[in-house]
Amino acid sequence: MNIIGAAPAIRGVLVDLAGVVYQGEALLPGSMQALSRLKERIPRVRYLTNTTRSTRRSLVDRLRRLGLAIEEEEVFSAPQAARQLLQQRGLRPFLLVHPDLLPEFGDFSTTNPNAVVLGDAGAALTYEGLNRAFRLLMEGAPLISMGRNRYFRESSGLSLDAGPFAAALEYAAGVRAEAVGKPDAEFFHRALTDLDCPPAEAVMIGDDVHDDVCGAVGAGLRGILVRTGKYRPGDERHLPAASATAVDDLAAAVEEILANRPS
Amino acid sequence: MNIIGAAPAIRGVLVDLAGVVYQGEALLPGSMQALSRLKERIPRVRYLTNTTRSTRRSLVDRLRRLGLAIEEEEVFSAPQAARQLLQQRGLRPFLLVHPDLLPEFGDFSTTNPNAVVLGDAGAALTYEGLNRAFRLLMEGAPLISMGRNRYFRESSGLSLDAGPFAAALEYAAGVRAEAVGKPDAEFFHRALTDLDCPPAEAVMIGDDVHDDVCGAVGAGLRGILVRTGKYRPGDERHLPAASATAVDDLAAAVEEILANRPS
Repeated sequence: MNIIGAAPAIRGVLVDLAGVVYQGEALLPGSMQALSRLKERIPRVRYLTNTTRSTRRSLVDRLRRLGLAIEEEEVFSAPQAARQLLQQRGLRPFLLVHPDLLPEFGDFSTTNPNAVVLGDAGAALTYEGLNRAFRLLMEGAPLISMGRNRYFRESSGLSLDAGPFAAALEYAAGVRAEAVGKPDAEFFHRALTDLDCPPAEAVMIGDDVHDDVCGAVGAGLRGILVRTGKYRPGDERHLPAASATAVDDLAAAVEEILANRPS
Repeated sequence: MNIIGAAPAIRGVLVDLAGVVYQGEALLPGSMQALSRLKERIPRVRYLTNTTRSTRRSLVDRLRRLGLAIEEEEVFSAPQAARQLLQQRGLRPFLLVHPDLLPEFGDFSTTNPNAVVLGDAGAALTYEGLNRAFRLLMEGAPLISMGRNRYFRESSGLSLDAGPFAAALEYAAGVRAEAVGKPDAEFFHRALTDLDCPPAEAVMIGDDVHDDVCGAVGAGLRGILVRTGKYRPGDERHLPAASATAVDDLAAAVEEILANRPS
């Protein structure tokens, strides 16, 4: 059965960045060509990332330096989703985030905050900051967590991501965080609203079988797992039985999408 | 029914300190007299505390300055239980604890650690320290948490205790902490082993209906809730149906224990 070529036809594509388009400080082989081929036929493309250690602008600048043709508006990140949430509810955030991400929230009032926004803040996460967040939660402020990731790999070894600190604040205050980012269904839907594309007509391409592929399928999209980046042999076991498939890389994923498309 | 006077007779008594014997920088009215009256009839008394912000020695020194006759050996604290655990298994701890507590573990080797000991470390809890602990857990080191308390009250407001950071490390590494301290049954049993008294012949006096009283009853002791310290009206609702009762203060608890004791 060809999952991706099945009706309804694909009209929108979401693409993970790290491990799919680039790795470290280089584009993955063939990814640039694959993306331009994709966009010729399906212009509705969004890059979907949970990264919270830099602004969207600096991420895009970095990818452009690597040679990728990419616009800021094409990137939908966890911080973008947090921004939307704050705007929709008129909230003033207390930002427990990486210093490099602060400019992303520069237009929000942060005096007398009534919401907590948590990201992977690295060494900027202090007891004092967490305690201030905790006290706001005890006063009823919502906790918005950019992702629930447990850890990530850096050159010195594995390091704590935002998820454990969300768990700490949830336990302390007896609340439940609103997680924005993959694999949250709402996150996929917000990205698709941007593209004006219903979930049933969209596919997500990613290297994380849980957050990218299972997350997307749970949100009503189809999913393609690529065997690059954080992919490990055997990850296919975790693929949802329906609506998902695995291919070698981004170029193969684009072929899969275009091969069965009505022209 | 008189729970405390029921057979078998009480031969050992565990007493919480903060909120029962003293409050802030003063002994609670009548507590000194009540304790000496108790010890004349039942010499097997241990003070049971989860405090992890100071050594047992400095806690005892402080209580002596307030006028209490108390010996170091009479205090059984969460750090004492952690020490026992480390000794029994020959572990070398990485200490994520308050700087004032470090001397309590001064006789342990901490080079090339193979266990994580977590306490309420306040501002000494940094991302780097938590990350180092996380990496040890990922290598298989056990996590020993001194208590699972969510928060405590200080003059500036509520503050995060050790429990939330145990939750963070558990979530990150996919492990379960061994909690030493109230309300863990093992903690009550260790204190009673010290007294050579079986749980069925012991009672715990405390101001925390969950950690002190329910914890003790869960460990097979009887429990008395005092209406001092952190007690709040209505806490009686949470008393276990059997084996527990509530009285006004430590003096009343001692009366309750001695009144029905066979002489």
